[in-house]
Amino acid sequence: MADDSTREYFAGTDRDRAAFEAGIKLGSIVHQYVGAPLTSATASSLERAIEAATRVQPLVEGVHVRIDRKRMRIRGPYRYGVLTEDLLDVEVSVRVGTARAIGVLRFVPELDYPLMYLKDVQ
Amino acid sequence: MADDSTREYFAGTDRDRAAFEAGIKLGSIVHQYVGAPLTSATASSLERAIEAATRVQPLVEGVHVRIDRKRMRIRGPYRYGVLTEDLLDVEVSVRVGTARAIGVLRFVPELDYPLMYLKDVQ
Amino acid sequence: MADDSTREYFAGTDRDRAAFEAGIKLGSIVHQYVGAPLTSATASSLERAIEAATRVQPLVEGVHVRIDRKRMRIRGPYRYGVLTEDLLDVEVSVRVGTARAIGVLRFVPELDYPLMYLKDVQ
Amino acid sequence: MADDSTREYFAGTDRDRAAFEAGIKLGSIVHQYVGAPLTSATASSLERAIEAATRVQPLVEGVHVRIDRKRMRIRGPYRYGVLTEDLLDVEVSVRVGTARAIGVLRFVPELDYPLMYLKDVQ
Repeated sequence: MADDSTREYFAGTDRDRAAFEAGIKLGSIVHQYVGAPLTSATASSLERAIEAATRVQPLVEGVHVRIDRKRMRIRGPYRYGVLTEDLLDVEVSVRVGTARAIGVLRFVPELDYPLMYLKDVQ
Repeated sequence: MADDSTREYFAGTDRDRAAFEAGIKLGSIVHQYVGAPLTSATASSLERAIEAATRVQPLVEGVHVRIDRKRMRIRGPYRYGVLTEDLLDVEVSVRVGTARAIGVLRFVPELDYPLMYLKDVQ
Repeated sequence: MADDSTREYFAGTDRDRAAFEAGIKLGSIVHQYVGAPLTSATASSLERAIEAATRVQPLVEGVHVRIDRKRMRIRGPYRYGVLTEDLLDVEVSVRVGTARAIGVLRFVPELDYPLMYLKDVQ
Repeated sequence: MADDSTREYFAGTDRDRAAFEAGIKLGSIVHQYVGAPLTSATASSLERAIEAATRVQPLVEGVHVRIDRKRMRIRGPYRYGVLTEDLLDVEVSVRVGTARAIGVLRFVPELDYPLMYLKDVQ
């Protein structure tokens, strides 16, 4: 990151920034795409679009997005659903210098909550 | 539409509803996807995802979405852009009984505005 | 609407456009704000912001937005919820020349669906 | 955070999590509200709604949101604008145990980019 023109704006270490950037990506995904209409047949096009949009963002090393077809709620007279936080299973890896953070979003049944957490940071 | 369980809720004619539904689809597209990160390389995955998500919605007969690569503004240290209303070129066709409405969203330079309009209704 | 510079782009009548514009507003509201975090205590600030944002849009005569506190699902370790389509009760009135359309979004239990419909058009 | 039921899911330290959570909040704000219609007269209602929605999220200690009226682009026949990333000036403070991170989003003219950065972390 020695040549990153944004570096001077950041307090903290590369590790701090890696964790921060992982959080940005997960927050962005949820709030950009939740509400999008979908069915089992269209879920994969949305998964691919979210992955592609995430990869262009700063410092992303890898991303995997999966929409849970089994939890998807197809309903109403027109038989479709919408993307909710609970359906998303996301893992994103961010690299800053030699630091790396892996952030995850997944629904945790014990918490009844779609939790975003750091799976690894070093 | 004789067998559409939603019909009893609607005032007006099938033609009114066709126009209304075309408006819903265009408003939905803009406000769901504006802000999504993109580059020329990822625009097509977003176009396909928007089209797929629109086709599952009520009464849609056809939809075509195009993101204007030439107007796309790639910028900043990380060289990517975001979807804006001005980049979208959308045509959606809705059918209600024998009525059909075609709604369009496109940036109109003379108005300096991304206009949504009825291209045809009958 | 005689002096509306957008008129030449529109097929159909003022009534068609009124229905179309009512649809735009409802589709926009749902897809802009669904996913926003909220509690009973913050719902009114979101209602006011949605109403204010809708009133600045083309041809809106009036709008009323209500978020259903009783159906709101507060959950997880941090005790908050998010806006879903099912929580929204919206009525928007659009005027085009002498035509007027009133669009509604509300959850209809019999359909198990958050329906957008034309309540009145003339 | 000893009594936080989410703790067991997290790798790293409280400081890592503070940075991560600050990132989540900024990413969420941008991707939830960008695209919302606004004028100078309605900007304050949107600022208040964003602040209220942010405060209900996990571990937020404080948040301040400002929409730049001077950079706002009011245009088109209906004379309104939409929220863009460049208009947002956000500072959010997150606390995890004894750790605290302050994240900022603001447009940085030298970078021609709406940068999210850690202003402080400890």
